[in-house]
Amino acid sequence: MKIAVLGTGMVGNALGTKLVQRGHEVTMGSRTANNEAAQKWASSLGERAHTATFQDAATFGEIVISCTGGMHSMEALEAVGVEPLRGKILIDVSNPLQQDQDGSVILGFCNTDSLGERIQRAFPRTRVVKALNTVNCDIMIEPSRVPGDHNLFICGNDPAAKKEVTKSLREWFGWKPDKIMDLGDITAARGTEMMMPLWMRLFQGVIGHPHFNWQIVRGQ
Amino acid sequence: MKIAVLGTGMVGNALGTKLVQRGHEVTMGSRTANNEAAQKWASSLGERAHTATFQDAATFGEIVISCTGGMHSMEALEAVGVEPLRGKILIDVSNPLQQDQDGSVILGFCNTDSLGERIQRAFPRTRVVKALNTVNCDIMIEPSRVPGDHNLFICGNDPAAKKEVTKSLREWFGWKPDKIMDLGDITAARGTEMMMPLWMRLFQGVIGHPHFNWQIVRGQ
Repeated sequence: MKIAVLGTGMVGNALGTKLVQRGHEVTMGSRTANNEAAQKWASSLGERAHTATFQDAATFGEIVISCTGGMHSMEALEAVGVEPLRGKILIDVSNPLQQDQDGSVILGFCNTDSLGERIQRAFPRTRVVKALNTVNCDIMIEPSRVPGDHNLFICGNDPAAKKEVTKSLREWFGWKPDKIMDLGDITAARGTEMMMPLWMRLFQGVIGHPHFNWQIVRGQ
Repeated sequence: MKIAVLGTGMVGNALGTKLVQRGHEVTMGSRTANNEAAQKWASSLGERAHTATFQDAATFGEIVISCTGGMHSMEALEAVGVEPLRGKILIDVSNPLQQDQDGSVILGFCNTDSLGERIQRAFPRTRVVKALNTVNCDIMIEPSRVPGDHNLFICGNDPAAKKEVTKSLREWFGWKPDKIMDLGDITAARGTEMMMPLWMRLFQGVIGHPHFNWQIVRGQ
């Protein structure tokens, strides 16, 4: 499969590397075609790893994974434009995190809006699926790193797209479909993005490393 | 122990009833001393259940539980005033939920502020502990209703107060201390209050009832 990974950070690297290892053709997109981080990534992985501009990467991909920094995702997707994304599944992995004046990490927007919704509004013909944004990238690509049962949340307006993404998350990374909870339409991205402040506190203040996840336990 | 429960809604009822059943003296506070819901609650429980104004209830309580609707909690506490709360532990159970124009449930404020912080700022001599706000009231008072391991989050600026609350949550309701995660200072209330949008979606759209909870699962 041809997959576009937009973003050259930790998340893009982790996802891109795993997807190449799984046998896919992956193009990592960035602002410029000769981005240093992207080229370093590609050179270590052989002929199935490519680099390109955001637009060329998205044009290449049959499926597009948006994992730029969440406060820059809209800008990156505007550089792609509507046409290369038309009809395609776009998996939005990012959270719109930014530093507050006092140094604490906050969301740039939330509550009445979300990054997932912003992308879906700007690209109405694209099948946006919010997924993977509630776990660290090491867990994204290797869920068994957290033992036992734990959940991933997905949402989006297109049920068929969510089914395809659920299937892909199993094939690519080993996520069990019965642990992937479909939260409904894309407005549920508010809820998963708003888990970040608690996630950050658990990471920095309680657990001390990012290798944990949530499990929803049901009573009667 | 003398306990004040501020609020006559579902949460105040559940907590107040359980605390009376556990042998405590409980005064349910509301705007007026003769609030109908409060009197109905008290009359069903016998001589250890009392009703009073917010101020008289808080004066009565050695510990105060704030469980008014979160958008009205500050108003209720302003009616109490600073003196009756001085030096006391106040457990803030509420979330500042309100309906958006489109009917969806949102937080009235979040991200750079929280109800827990607002209360602590307005009552600097009160030992505010945010707790119980991430579960339905049936789970608050009977955590075994959700099987297996699952977590409660507490936060606050006063470590000794958090220890006392942790002990009380075990004695009152059966919460295992090793399942109660201390998130640090009161600003962590942002994180637990911001779980509400996901909680609401799980409740209304996925699980269909409010009897579930989160478990944090750790990897390495």
